[in-house]
Amino acid sequence: MHPFDAAIHLEPTAEDTFRAHTSARYANQIGPFGGITAATLLNAVLQHPQRIGVPVSLTVNYAAAVANGEFSVLARAVRTGRSTQHWMVEASQAGAVVTTATAVTAVRRETWCGSCTAPPRGLPPPEAIERLDGAGAPIWFANYDMRSLYGGYPAVENFPGQPAEAREEDSRSAAWLRDRPARPLDFVSLAALCDAFYPRVFVKRRAIMPASTISLTIYFHADEALLAAQGDQFLLGIAEGIHYRHGFFDQRAELWGAGEQLLASTHQVMFFRE
Amino acid sequence: MHPFDAAIHLEPTAEDTFRAHTSARYANQIGPFGGITAATLLNAVLQHPQRIGVPVSLTVNYAAAVANGEFSVLARAVRTGRSTQHWMVEASQAGAVVTTATAVTAVRRETWCGSCTAPPRGLPPPEAIERLDGAGAPIWFANYDMRSLYGGYPAVENFPGQPAEAREEDSRSAAWLRDRPARPLDFVSLAALCDAFYPRVFVKRRAIMPASTISLTIYFHADEALLAAQGDQFLLGIAEGIHYRHGFFDQRAELWGAGEQLLASTHQVMFFRE
Repeated sequence: MHPFDAAIHLEPTAEDTFRAHTSARYANQIGPFGGITAATLLNAVLQHPQRIGVPVSLTVNYAAAVANGEFSVLARAVRTGRSTQHWMVEASQAGAVVTTATAVTAVRRETWCGSCTAPPRGLPPPEAIERLDGAGAPIWFANYDMRSLYGGYPAVENFPGQPAEAREEDSRSAAWLRDRPARPLDFVSLAALCDAFYPRVFVKRRAIMPASTISLTIYFHADEALLAAQGDQFLLGIAEGIHYRHGFFDQRAELWGAGEQLLASTHQVMFFRE
Repeated sequence: MHPFDAAIHLEPTAEDTFRAHTSARYANQIGPFGGITAATLLNAVLQHPQRIGVPVSLTVNYAAAVANGEFSVLARAVRTGRSTQHWMVEASQAGAVVTTATAVTAVRRETWCGSCTAPPRGLPPPEAIERLDGAGAPIWFANYDMRSLYGGYPAVENFPGQPAEAREEDSRSAAWLRDRPARPLDFVSLAALCDAFYPRVFVKRRAIMPASTISLTIYFHADEALLAAQGDQFLLGIAEGIHYRHGFFDQRAELWGAGEQLLASTHQVMFFRE
């Protein structure tokens, strides 16, 4: 079993309720990697016998650090329409809520497709770039193969391919990334990958400081056909900060797949302390 | 009483529970304007006697059309930390959930502030531009004074200041906007203004079609001091679509206040049918 699948594993315990367990391999500085928590909560929706359709949106709120060990996940379909379903999810530990989420799943129909955004072009392929070795990174980072194109982690001087201007002008980063070891992409792994970008305040301020996700929203553009076409190929992730004020900032990212297909766009607000 | 305040009025009925009523003045084609629903649910959090701090994030999920008349709002503080509080909100009508929300409130601290984004400059002031008359727009639009700078409503040919390229290249719009009649900005009116931009698919496709918000997320950068400094002045709103695929698309917006202060950034996913 891939370590990712072990980490998000759920055991049904009652109607709407699952037992989960934190994974030492996906540990963050405090509690688990936010992406693995997001994937676990989404997994409860996807495993639920009443679920219809595929994920369209997911919002995860990190209410408290999850302690190492078991936690329970309550996933309720609060409204089911003809083709759309709304979910509320609560993860609890020792009787207290540690994480909440809402999700929308839907049966997608073929329609016109288009985009107002495009990935950067002419980038070197993943094979031409070394994997970030993750020195100083939290434990979970070893589960990802991230290859920085520009806007690298500010404390690491030897990121390949980082142009000088990316270190001063903004907080924009581009990187190839996928699970390590490689694993065919699905909705849950895509959700986790949406949280794999380090806090933009590190890049903007050229300094490491306490920072953690408060709320994360993901919009899924991929459907099952696009996921299947992607397989275990690298994604191209583009992340940038937006605005920083009085203890909080927001950042957004786009995850592009093969054939310049946007698989997900994501936006999150983080806490930081100087 | 300003019509906005009448529309979001809540009457406490039990612990965590409020009675609300739809407003004919904020009616959309089907059900109420999504922005007024977002503001009403946020209002339940702000009116709650246990609330600490100010809003940092809000996600609203539109599960079903709200029928004209009463609805109830359940707002629960599911986790309260030292300076951060997590909320789950459910709006129900006739025993069925019609809207859900999660919110985070927090006591903000003074920190370094900065931005990776900036508003467009050199735009004509609101006084130089006529208000959109809202011909063909839903009823709620009459409660807003929107003055289009570029990227106007595609069915209306006479938007002033719309450069030709904005009609073909992308779905980006800029507009001055505020409540009508003018009303000092607060968190609830800011939340509603975040949903005042018409669907980007109208702009991208140059066509009106059925489209409605599925899930809306707002990150508040404004605190009480910035809101007070803003008063009832016009905001500058910048909106753009991102990606359109198989019945859904996402769009984002920034709302800028006086002194080039970013007051909120927002991202939403919408359903559309050609």
